[in-house]
Amino acid sequence: MNYSSAFIPTLREVPADAVIASHRLMFRAGLLRKLANGLFAYLPLGLRSFRKVEQIIREEMNAAGALEIKPTVVVPGELWKESGRWDAMGESLLRVKNRLDNDFVVSPTAEEAFTSIVRDELSSYRQLPLTLYQINTKFRDEIRPRYGVMRGREFVMKDAYSWHTDDKSLDETYQAMGRAYRRIFKRCGLSVIPVKADSGAMGGSGSEEFMVESEVGDNTLILCKKCDYAANVEKAGCKPDFTTAAAANTPPFEKIDTPNVKTIDELCAFLKTESSQFIKTLIYRALNVELDLSAAPGCSKLERKKPAPDAPLVYPEAFFSVAIRGDLDVNEVKLAAALKASEVALASDNDVIRLTNAPVGFAGPVGLTSLPLVIDHTVTGMNDAVTGALEKDLHYRHVAYGRDFTGWMIEDVRTVKAGDLCPLCGGELYTKMGNELGHIFKLGYKYTRSMNVSYLDENGKAQTPIMGCYGIGVDRTLASVIEEHHDEAGIIWPTSIAPYHVIIIPIKYDGAVKAAADKLAAELTEAGLEVLLDDRNERPGVKFNDADLTGIPWRVVIGDKGLANPTPQVEIKRRSEKENRMVELDKAAAELAQKIREEEEIIKALK
Amino acid sequence: MNYSSAFIPTLREVPADAVIASHRLMFRAGLLRKLANGLFAYLPLGLRSFRKVEQIIREEMNAAGALEIKPTVVVPGELWKESGRWDAMGESLLRVKNRLDNDFVVSPTAEEAFTSIVRDELSSYRQLPLTLYQINTKFRDEIRPRYGVMRGREFVMKDAYSWHTDDKSLDETYQAMGRAYRRIFKRCGLSVIPVKADSGAMGGSGSEEFMVESEVGDNTLILCKKCDYAANVEKAGCKPDFTTAAAANTPPFEKIDTPNVKTIDELCAFLKTESSQFIKTLIYRALNVELDLSAAPGCSKLERKKPAPDAPLVYPEAFFSVAIRGDLDVNEVKLAAALKASEVALASDNDVIRLTNAPVGFAGPVGLTSLPLVIDHTVTGMNDAVTGALEKDLHYRHVAYGRDFTGWMIEDVRTVKAGDLCPLCGGELYTKMGNELGHIFKLGYKYTRSMNVSYLDENGKAQTPIMGCYGIGVDRTLASVIEEHHDEAGIIWPTSIAPYHVIIIPIKYDGAVKAAADKLAAELTEAGLEVLLDDRNERPGVKFNDADLTGIPWRVVIGDKGLANPTPQVEIKRRSEKENRMVELDKAAAELAQKIREEEEIIKALK
Repeated sequence: MNYSSAFIPTLREVPADAVIASHRLMFRAGLLRKLANGLFAYLPLGLRSFRKVEQIIREEMNAAGALEIKPTVVVPGELWKESGRWDAMGESLLRVKNRLDNDFVVSPTAEEAFTSIVRDELSSYRQLPLTLYQINTKFRDEIRPRYGVMRGREFVMKDAYSWHTDDKSLDETYQAMGRAYRRIFKRCGLSVIPVKADSGAMGGSGSEEFMVESEVGDNTLILCKKCDYAANVEKAGCKPDFTTAAAANTPPFEKIDTPNVKTIDELCAFLKTESSQFIKTLIYRALNVELDLSAAPGCSKLERKKPAPDAPLVYPEAFFSVAIRGDLDVNEVKLAAALKASEVALASDNDVIRLTNAPVGFAGPVGLTSLPLVIDHTVTGMNDAVTGALEKDLHYRHVAYGRDFTGWMIEDVRTVKAGDLCPLCGGELYTKMGNELGHIFKLGYKYTRSMNVSYLDENGKAQTPIMGCYGIGVDRTLASVIEEHHDEAGIIWPTSIAPYHVIIIPIKYDGAVKAAADKLAAELTEAGLEVLLDDRNERPGVKFNDADLTGIPWRVVIGDKGLANPTPQVEIKRRSEKENRMVELDKAAAELAQKIREEEEIIKALK
Repeated sequence: MNYSSAFIPTLREVPADAVIASHRLMFRAGLLRKLANGLFAYLPLGLRSFRKVEQIIREEMNAAGALEIKPTVVVPGELWKESGRWDAMGESLLRVKNRLDNDFVVSPTAEEAFTSIVRDELSSYRQLPLTLYQINTKFRDEIRPRYGVMRGREFVMKDAYSWHTDDKSLDETYQAMGRAYRRIFKRCGLSVIPVKADSGAMGGSGSEEFMVESEVGDNTLILCKKCDYAANVEKAGCKPDFTTAAAANTPPFEKIDTPNVKTIDELCAFLKTESSQFIKTLIYRALNVELDLSAAPGCSKLERKKPAPDAPLVYPEAFFSVAIRGDLDVNEVKLAAALKASEVALASDNDVIRLTNAPVGFAGPVGLTSLPLVIDHTVTGMNDAVTGALEKDLHYRHVAYGRDFTGWMIEDVRTVKAGDLCPLCGGELYTKMGNELGHIFKLGYKYTRSMNVSYLDENGKAQTPIMGCYGIGVDRTLASVIEEHHDEAGIIWPTSIAPYHVIIIPIKYDGAVKAAADKLAAELTEAGLEVLLDDRNERPGVKFNDADLTGIPWRVVIGDKGLANPTPQVEIKRRSEKENRMVELDKAAAELAQKIREEEEIIKALK
């Protein structure tokens, strides 16, 4: 391909709103242009790399036994009403009405569409397991799209879904997908951090996020300095960092007057002590609780229901108190998982007053019997604490766990912070900001139950299949490669997804230099390489800068001087290296082809 | 690929709403399923062929010098407001508002998005010509989607757009696209009818539609029995089928009383004559007329305006009378082209009464001087006709063209019918129903003017580029291949887009037969062929039926009997042929590979 015909509009200026390297470089190198906020067009150079990322994903999905299909991008709203997500999804779901007043959704993900297809075709256990995927356009109506394609409104996602007769089969596919994801990211030249987490009540027992480090990441990752523990802060656990002390030496607890003191900070100032000396007690409302509450305090009148015919019984709504050390925060994802609830949120003021029989701000674990008390691990180490006294302007001091109160459940429900201890090895935890590129997830029965999917088992009995889902953002993956592989001059593409393998720069595209450039381009093309020939009538400096900016892995410079050697020579340089060297013109094509083939072999052999 | 893992849910029943072969067979062969009215999901087998059609289109576009890009599917409504299509497009345009109340369009075509990208990057004539394309999802909110993917709501289209400094350059790209389209359809095994037409006032001087015959086609094609003339009835011309006769022997025209007679049928009955003896006179309202009307009857007060800064002057609104033989219809596309108008439509009753000074139904060419009279060719041959007398309940008879009236313009504006004469060779014309698969079209300046695109020419002067556009419906192309290549048993895929090249049917997938089948599958795969191995525990009849239904080009049957030969043999059959023959197992892979390679060579060599 001749550069002058390739429509590569490179820019010297940096777009004003581009704060991260990939956003800046995708615009500057002519890969991308903006159509509107969060809507981007890939130009030819960008699309070439984009398609290579797609193809790597496709090859690895096929190798893992997944089958590609193509549902529509615009899907019937009916399906989303069936699954319940029409109501449950917020405003990020782009809802559309057509001329006949039918509801549609511009797909953000496709659990419903895939499940409806499988529902109609599934009859026997012999058809399972089944894994289907698509690589297709998605839309999420981000309220604040930014960082270029890293957080755009329209994007392309590979989303796969699998159906199984049992947990074991689901786990096999889940593991195969995990291996495929590792290969995909390695083949793209990306260092990912696989973050495992128990996804708890979300319907399954497995979830792994594939993160890349990013200063503007959406996620806080908790990592261990000693072992390879990695978790999303939303789900990270930690080792208790205290020892449970006996309360023998603590004086009996007593009520103290704390007039006009409401927050923990005010209380610290008032009592001249630290927040870690307080037991914070919060009231939570939980939805669809699977735990058995029949013997829990205050729950005797609660009734269980089935949200779907063969779903387990749940309490549609229940309230809990949670006690935690005053300097810590409750992690609601971990709390929901502990309660096997679909959702938890702080109770309303009215509910707090009703349930604690006290004003807001004075809840405490001592004497609180109107609802089940969840005790964070940390509280079990507190033997001389301050806490609310369930009365206005009154607190207790000298409160000791075990002596003055116990809990209905003891769990790790705290939000982990840097400096906490690794739950696996006890090493020190630290944090990184990260972006999620992929996610594999055991979905459980959420969609197969709500959408009534069934098959006949070996005994002819109707059963509900269990599901997994597996996503990768193609745009984000591409942008993340640039984040990881660039320098001040531009992109440094890994060969596997470079838009071209080689750029040939004739110092002046004329005479003998032109003839040599054309010949080399033809030889490289013949050898199966993708070649960009800079045929422009520009100064060499401009061409060198554009070659560095666009990041083509190999650069060949052809000038009169090199050609004047007894055996004509050209200069070869790898974008990722500083040194260049002269090789014989006649051997250049073979040498480059061999180097690139060798790299491909290494990548293919990746485990 | 093993059949049992390939998710090919074939059906014995025909879907109730499937009236055409491709719709029936795409469902029965497990290529496609319905998500909602007009929304379809391609299953694995269907998607494999779909991707091959896409790839053929991509290769031919690239070979023709077009560059692939990828704008979004959801595009800003702002761009459509700029071009004027936000208002001009009817309800088939799917308009969306997002959470921020911004307007968006789910793209039906992408003139605006492409033009906006080029507008921002174009500076010099040196960047032109430029041809960009995408293969991407489109949406058209069909009020009555039917015939499966032949007329769905969501579909994939390859749409290309080109920009040029002049007509000559546009014509070169237009011709190159025409050649690429012919190759694309040939490579897919399709017989297309290229239908050329002057697209008249639509902004250019060239348009070619690529049609396939279809009993349920949207288009009526006019074809010549003698030469290769082919036209859409919307634009078809014909040779005058009469001779202009002198009026010498016609008595002077006279007024006749025709009480309560309004329609031509009533008039025929009343006067006991044929509709071909009447001159029908219709009043049309035309918009944006480019023709100079300064000397036309009744037009002296009309003023010309420029719809865009460098667009030509037009009359925003003008009225015309059109006289045509009573048994014929006016073709409004041809009329608009003759008038160089953007649009023509019958005038309202009020306008007719105002302009003819007579009730509706009594217009006639004699004495009608209040507006320009367009005479269809046929009228010039009428020397003793009946026509309206511009008064209630009165007609003229013995009216002769040339003697009693003449026109302001004489043009072919009739709708051509079967039996009319070919405009090229005078042969007899006949009709076929057809579906449009592709369209290449000289767009002219419509978008570059309304969206203010410019470049600097060699003299540094700002100029507006001229544009072409070129579309192919991928889904329709695929469905049309099935329409052309099937029999009662199922699809007969051309090798170029078959989902698999070979299906291997072991009579029983067990023992020596299984071993031979596995070995042959491995050899064929090694030879680069795509192989489906029917490993199911089904009766041979079921397997044969599914092989015929899914239409894999080559079938290899392996059974104990053939293997028992001194040199083990297998049966090879081509889906398109009735005969099968035995070949040596050890030579089967090489023979099939050679045959398929030969076919590919032939296709590659296509001109």
